[in-house]
Amino acid sequence: MDKIIIEARVNELATRQENPNVPFIPAEIIRDAKACYDEGASILHYHGRTATGEPEHAASFYLETNAGIRAQCPILVHPTLGYVANDADAMGRFAAVEEMMKDPITAPDFAPMDVGTVNVDWWDPDKNSYTTTNLVYENSTETLMHFADRIKHHGLKQYLVSWNVSFTRQIEAFMKMGVIPAPAYVCFCMTDGISLSGHPGTPEGLDAHIAFLPKDREMIWTAVNYKGNLLLLTEKIIKAGGHISIGLGDYPYLEYGTPTNADIIAKVVEQARALDREPATVEETREILGMNKVRAAA
Amino acid sequence: MDKIIIEARVNELATRQENPNVPFIPAEIIRDAKACYDEGASILHYHGRTATGEPEHAASFYLETNAGIRAQCPILVHPTLGYVANDADAMGRFAAVEEMMKDPITAPDFAPMDVGTVNVDWWDPDKNSYTTTNLVYENSTETLMHFADRIKHHGLKQYLVSWNVSFTRQIEAFMKMGVIPAPAYVCFCMTDGISLSGHPGTPEGLDAHIAFLPKDREMIWTAVNYKGNLLLLTEKIIKAGGHISIGLGDYPYLEYGTPTNADIIAKVVEQARALDREPATVEETREILGMNKVRAAA
Repeated sequence: MDKIIIEARVNELATRQENPNVPFIPAEIIRDAKACYDEGASILHYHGRTATGEPEHAASFYLETNAGIRAQCPILVHPTLGYVANDADAMGRFAAVEEMMKDPITAPDFAPMDVGTVNVDWWDPDKNSYTTTNLVYENSTETLMHFADRIKHHGLKQYLVSWNVSFTRQIEAFMKMGVIPAPAYVCFCMTDGISLSGHPGTPEGLDAHIAFLPKDREMIWTAVNYKGNLLLLTEKIIKAGGHISIGLGDYPYLEYGTPTNADIIAKVVEQARALDREPATVEETREILGMNKVRAAA
Repeated sequence: MDKIIIEARVNELATRQENPNVPFIPAEIIRDAKACYDEGASILHYHGRTATGEPEHAASFYLETNAGIRAQCPILVHPTLGYVANDADAMGRFAAVEEMMKDPITAPDFAPMDVGTVNVDWWDPDKNSYTTTNLVYENSTETLMHFADRIKHHGLKQYLVSWNVSFTRQIEAFMKMGVIPAPAYVCFCMTDGISLSGHPGTPEGLDAHIAFLPKDREMIWTAVNYKGNLLLLTEKIIKAGGHISIGLGDYPYLEYGTPTNADIIAKVVEQARALDREPATVEETREILGMNKVRAAA
């Protein structure tokens, strides 16, 4: 079967209360990038964080981190646009990318587009209540077309996130329009625990994403379980020909002690190899996702 | 099998360009309410419209229409909150219901809650392009809790709409919180043609809704295809134990000439009977949905 693309999602907005190995500052993210690359990850996804773990969306954070990663290893770099923590102005979420693009050493390889709008309030499964009531993750069609335009301008690869079937249909529509070039790289976002915003991280939840892959468009998919244990589903994903995006940013994985991000990547690589899928190198990942073509056309 | 609840969705925002039988003004809606009731519908859903078809959300429209329907037949009344056409202030969408509740003769039986947020831009399938780019149908958790509170206060039945799996999960969360009482009545919204916002109106689209009915909560479901031909799916819905919400508001049904709303209801009733499900009367509908209990508790 095809090589498998493994992406390390190292920190998101996760705290260190459960697993202290979540990286926050640039030096920690750079360290994890190298360690995950050494284990077989070909993409690194990270969020800017302060030393105490607050969201930190200053461009300087991304410039320092990207340059530091480049100096260590060739892993493909995929920084956040800030998620709902940077939601005051949807268009403004792209400002940090514009800064990163001013120097090849700080330029990322991917820019994300969450292709739709969804409520993302936090849920407390112990108390059966919402802990927030006003978090709408808004990505209007107009905002998304702006992001797509800037991503194309810079020759980056779109990293598309689908939280539910409505998102996948909008991705297909954008492919028909040429706003999203083929092959599209789509992350099927499942959620569990304190997030109910995506499909559940179950076989049914994954199936209900995969069923809507367009029949006549080239869409390559990876899967994530935000706030849930994706390792319960990785065998199914690997066998189904999907790719895997995983890390301490999503879930502390205390079932396995207090693992590092690299420990989680090593587990996935071991499982993928046992199922006859070798991890894709950085160059193979670029090939699978048509990234050389993208940059050449820019 | 259980009786089937048939809801007539008579006008939505549909034009008369394709089918001239779409009712706009109160007298036309009242006429269709009676005709659909006579064919076997037990719920009427409608939107306020001007004589030329523009959205019309003045309370007076609903007062006149509801009172007129009550004078004709006992069909259960389910007016819109205005959808995205009344989106300037989400909380304000409920203002017309408050007016309707001042007199029993103008009081509706249902008030809708679209339990989540989704992009609802219009799609042109011929040109492969969006005709709008800024329509976000926003229903924050806080707004929904406000609606639920007012619906409970007035002793109305919640009519819950799920556009995708994220919505159904929020409905389940609200059931755990007690914000949505059992039994919950949920409309699985599928969309086709000029709307890509819900699941596609296919067996796969319906299955991907049904798969997430909570295992341990009482949820009764109906299904709609907004902008698509639901009659292609009614056999499956009837056999699966679902209920049906259908009408010229969603689709002109020109495959069958230029039918009226009552013609469409008659078709569904005929098919349901052939599959051994009798249409539920108004009183049976109230029983199935636990509506007498709701009003008694208010």
